[in-house]
Amino acid sequence: MTNLFNSKLSVINVGVSDFAKPIIGSDAKVINVDWTPPGNDENVARALGQLVNRSEVEEANHRSFQRYLDSQPTLVGVKPAFQVIEGMSEKTIMHSGPPITWEKMCSPMRGAIIGACIFEEWETDHKSAEKTLESGAINFIPCHHNRAVGPMAGIISPSMPVWIIDDPVHNSRYFSNLNEGLGKVLRFGANDSEVINRLHWMKEVLGPALGKSLEKMEPLKLKPLMAQALHMGDEVHNRNVAASALLLKRLITAALKTDIKVSVLSELVNFISNNDHFFLNLSMSACKAMMDAAHGIPGSSLVTAMARNGTDFGIRVSGLGDNWFKAPAPLIDGLFFPGFDASDANPDLGDSSITETAGVGAFAMAASPAIVQFVGGSAYDSIENTKLMSHITHSQNDAFTIPQMNFSATPACIDVRKVIDTSIMPIINTGIAHRKAGVGQIGAGITKAPADCFSQAVIALAKTFSN
Amino acid sequence: MTNLFNSKLSVINVGVSDFAKPIIGSDAKVINVDWTPPGNDENVARALGQLVNRSEVEEANHRSFQRYLDSQPTLVGVKPAFQVIEGMSEKTIMHSGPPITWEKMCSPMRGAIIGACIFEEWETDHKSAEKTLESGAINFIPCHHNRAVGPMAGIISPSMPVWIIDDPVHNSRYFSNLNEGLGKVLRFGANDSEVINRLHWMKEVLGPALGKSLEKMEPLKLKPLMAQALHMGDEVHNRNVAASALLLKRLITAALKTDIKVSVLSELVNFISNNDHFFLNLSMSACKAMMDAAHGIPGSSLVTAMARNGTDFGIRVSGLGDNWFKAPAPLIDGLFFPGFDASDANPDLGDSSITETAGVGAFAMAASPAIVQFVGGSAYDSIENTKLMSHITHSQNDAFTIPQMNFSATPACIDVRKVIDTSIMPIINTGIAHRKAGVGQIGAGITKAPADCFSQAVIALAKTFSN
Repeated sequence: MTNLFNSKLSVINVGVSDFAKPIIGSDAKVINVDWTPPGNDENVARALGQLVNRSEVEEANHRSFQRYLDSQPTLVGVKPAFQVIEGMSEKTIMHSGPPITWEKMCSPMRGAIIGACIFEEWETDHKSAEKTLESGAINFIPCHHNRAVGPMAGIISPSMPVWIIDDPVHNSRYFSNLNEGLGKVLRFGANDSEVINRLHWMKEVLGPALGKSLEKMEPLKLKPLMAQALHMGDEVHNRNVAASALLLKRLITAALKTDIKVSVLSELVNFISNNDHFFLNLSMSACKAMMDAAHGIPGSSLVTAMARNGTDFGIRVSGLGDNWFKAPAPLIDGLFFPGFDASDANPDLGDSSITETAGVGAFAMAASPAIVQFVGGSAYDSIENTKLMSHITHSQNDAFTIPQMNFSATPACIDVRKVIDTSIMPIINTGIAHRKAGVGQIGAGITKAPADCFSQAVIALAKTFSN
Repeated sequence: MTNLFNSKLSVINVGVSDFAKPIIGSDAKVINVDWTPPGNDENVARALGQLVNRSEVEEANHRSFQRYLDSQPTLVGVKPAFQVIEGMSEKTIMHSGPPITWEKMCSPMRGAIIGACIFEEWETDHKSAEKTLESGAINFIPCHHNRAVGPMAGIISPSMPVWIIDDPVHNSRYFSNLNEGLGKVLRFGANDSEVINRLHWMKEVLGPALGKSLEKMEPLKLKPLMAQALHMGDEVHNRNVAASALLLKRLITAALKTDIKVSVLSELVNFISNNDHFFLNLSMSACKAMMDAAHGIPGSSLVTAMARNGTDFGIRVSGLGDNWFKAPAPLIDGLFFPGFDASDANPDLGDSSITETAGVGAFAMAASPAIVQFVGGSAYDSIENTKLMSHITHSQNDAFTIPQMNFSATPACIDVRKVIDTSIMPIINTGIAHRKAGVGQIGAGITKAPADCFSQAVIALAKTFSN
């Protein structure tokens, strides 16, 4: 006991952080554990009790996880959306996140949809477009409902070119739009002539050139390319510098085998080599393929999608079909570009959190210490973030390893039970959109999935069992 | 005292490692410090005493280091060696490392020189080439003596295309040959028709295409590109994956502005995109430019070159003019490709240790945890290696930062005094050549510069002062 009173104290404080204040005053080292009772709610705790150590759940998760590991997303082509996406009828626009009505959409998403109407030549000006959209004449579908994903507003309209990603293991096909670059772009809600002209160039020049080039190369397995990028400082969500350069190497090699004119090749190389996020949409659709493979296993508590429409944050769970479990989209803790602050920020937006769902992005943050330069932490924090996520994942994915952690595998496949049990929420690396359409990106940072989504899912999953 | 005997021991053992054996037997933690008295020689210790804390040396090192920091190596072109390298007279061959005669050359260097004679069409077959070389009719000059560097055998003959790197800050110009790729290549001593044909293609197709392309782009500052590559898992000596991809992006953008035929563009892109070491020779010549800027400051104890010809390892020191301080080239501690072992290995070879001299390569190993996969260590070791080197360098270079060490700067510019004082030898990441010409690379690993080079330099530098 004498030892205890004479030595410097190291205290772990669980729960209310004020309890630790007197101890901090006495110069002891205190670690505050951000813990609340599971779900903070009796119903959630009871549901969790029914799911923990339940063999049906364990077996379902094992099966679901194995399908995730087995998936082999492979880039096979680029075509206009209406030609390849089944649910893409004439006046349909796909958007990011869970389903949402025009009335509830945030301003960047509305701006992006207005831009898409003008790009498609359904309308000639903003006013008439807005009127048409208010009337309900345009059909909105979440990208996720059509085997697709899109960053930020995630707008895909019928004539936009889309990446086609096959998973030959599960005989399925996925899609994403092409990345427009940074600055004034549709996905942040910008819709002036510069944006529309770029979309036309992407439709008429970039898309066909990519399509032709891909015909000249072997189908490109995306997981090995993502794995290589993780060894080169990317986390393939907010940093895609290496992956984009590696992709360009392959694309240009193929493009030079086509009859594409040199002037067009030049435009293509300029566009891609000046957009370090070019690979993002491929990373996202590869992750979508992996997670859809894991989806639909009765009893499984693994999260198969996390997505935001700028108003709601929603998750889907493997054993819970097409339901979305939603909560208000959170704000983002990050660094803002000069002239902007938190009051300018739109709540969290986009399908890109499919990367974290699949065990990359913030879950592989340790691989990408440069990411913390954007969000105000240290390289050490990036390792801690990856380690923290291992408490809420089913297992790890040996296909994705992290040099900075002695090539240990990334934590993969969030288990809603573990999230509620530990009160550790999945972290997400993300860009911050201005809340007004068209201003664009105003910063980047880290956010956490809202606890309420996981509480609802735990209750719903417990209900699928008879007792 | 009771505490000391009851607690687990942690012991630092200085010098003879056997002294620690009984302690290790008792389950204590022992760190062996690899220390011997400075220089292991009275003359060296006396010379070191004359140099330590000497204001003339400190001032000279400060000036030398500032010139190193100020240098701005910039890629400006590609031309045949004879057109741009002054010392390149008609029957001259440049090689790596300190000066050496034909008699003393290792087999890979001899093989490479025979190949160069055939490539230049001075000889038609190996036998006649060997006879000519034995006769002394060919002039050998170290690359370093002609402001150039070359990896492994480092052979540059008159009609080979060379990179031209300017340092506009110091109004000087540097050179390196183009990287041939892996496998059977001249720099490992291979000289059959496959090798000679590739050299002809590089002379007639690749070199001119690169030259034309570089005319269409702004002079390319190499330090920022190297710094970016350090953030992408390269250490720009034994790993150049990111740097090569970043370079290709710029080259192809420029190449598409020229009148180069698409079929040639295609060959160029294939060659570069399949050679992850393509950037190495640029990294080396950039480092040569930085170190030559630091060279020639009277009194300075900073190392401005470390180079090996496969027989000798030599260093040059800023305050000691054109002298080489030599010792036998060391063997390399590393991993061997299947079928080979240490008995097959040639001693250390090549000018590529100019990268370590300039504070990258093994000195920035922490930036490149993937490197340890080749040499059998852990990612942790790579950080320890970088930290260790900070004990023997003058300072650090803020132009090169390491994400894995919270973006701290790389240790830079070896001080011969510190090497002798600490007995910490500079470490070098390197490929391992088979000791027979033409077999090629048989592994990769880590070696240390021989202590004797630094002892000689300390004695020589002390002699430059009157007392």
